[in-house]
Amino acid sequence: MRGGLFITIEGGEGSGKTTLIHAIALRAQQQGYEVMITREPGGIPIAEAIRAVILNKENTAMDARTEALLYAAARRQHLAEKVMPALKSNKIVICDRFVDSSLAYQGFARGLGLEAVWEINRFATEGCMPDLTLYLDLDPEIGLERIERNGEREINRLDLENLAFHHLVREGYKLLEVRFAERIVTIDAAASPEHIAEQAWKHLEPKLLSGKVEE
Amino acid sequence: MRGGLFITIEGGEGSGKTTLIHAIALRAQQQGYEVMITREPGGIPIAEAIRAVILNKENTAMDARTEALLYAAARRQHLAEKVMPALKSNKIVICDRFVDSSLAYQGFARGLGLEAVWEINRFATEGCMPDLTLYLDLDPEIGLERIERNGEREINRLDLENLAFHHLVREGYKLLEVRFAERIVTIDAAASPEHIAEQAWKHLEPKLLSGKVEE
Repeated sequence: MRGGLFITIEGGEGSGKTTLIHAIALRAQQQGYEVMITREPGGIPIAEAIRAVILNKENTAMDARTEALLYAAARRQHLAEKVMPALKSNKIVICDRFVDSSLAYQGFARGLGLEAVWEINRFATEGCMPDLTLYLDLDPEIGLERIERNGEREINRLDLENLAFHHLVREGYKLLEVRFAERIVTIDAAASPEHIAEQAWKHLEPKLLSGKVEE
Repeated sequence: MRGGLFITIEGGEGSGKTTLIHAIALRAQQQGYEVMITREPGGIPIAEAIRAVILNKENTAMDARTEALLYAAARRQHLAEKVMPALKSNKIVICDRFVDSSLAYQGFARGLGLEAVWEINRFATEGCMPDLTLYLDLDPEIGLERIERNGEREINRLDLENLAFHHLVREGYKLLEVRFAERIVTIDAAASPEHIAEQAWKHLEPKLLSGKVEE
């Protein structure tokens, strides 16, 4: 049996994933839990090498299915080398994006099919799925505005062209919420960071108290 | 509808795959068909980059599932960039090893599971499966003897240790012959090259004559 607790955070750009991750990590640590924050490829050399193939700008001929298989391969290695050992040593693992990103982006918005992308990710995860997934739901236009307001980067023409795509991604996440109802919780990301963290904790706390993780 | 004819050749080391490939390619060319011989990653830059990650000796921590996903990714790219266009332009494509190698080696002999490895390869091939697969069946000990006799390379201690593994691979292929009976034909590779080529042609010729490929 697997110990620890595996939490993943999902959501579009500007939805506040990073802020939420740090808020719940801090709160868990204050209660005496050991927490590991991560995101793929997470400094794992093989996963980084795979990601480099995906992101290499010369690889313009990359087929969408090749890309989905490479994401699944990097995911597997990050899981095997970093997430699984941390769970085994009873840590709370908080991962910024996981399978649901592949399902919403590649599976739904890029049209490869949710179930097809789920098949390869089921192989990659081998049953090591999150105990809880917090999906930060936000209108993509508000997300973009936030990015600009926070001075993270300038919004360009491409961002505006991509809005239709990000609306599709959001539709994908809404389907996943139904498909994986036992695992995914949607949180209204238009609320204040404090309110979002409070909502997240309300779902997280019962998992901590269920005794899977020893304090 | 796909044109052309897609032939794959499978078998262990020393089973005579290369000899057979050249024999049937020559015969098909003599009859006026356009033939393309290939093998993964086949000079396709993205597939070569993926293969380099698999073969990098520093990547000793590579998980077996990561490896299987990477093979499927390289396969997909080789298929999309090289095999599919050749079939579309009505060529006979002869590919040295394909999905069945992953199924027999990773799925069966390495224990990942035939059906699990088939799932990710089904995603990778997207229905572009061989019209005919010729499996050259040979006792692995005879295969090793042939390699030594042909002066291809010296047989070492590792080869002998690997004999049990290669017997497992052979068992895997025998399961595939049943699982994919409509596609896989087993040829006794202990016979003479001439006899093997004759057997292969007997199975290949009806496919050529079925009118899928225009002369």
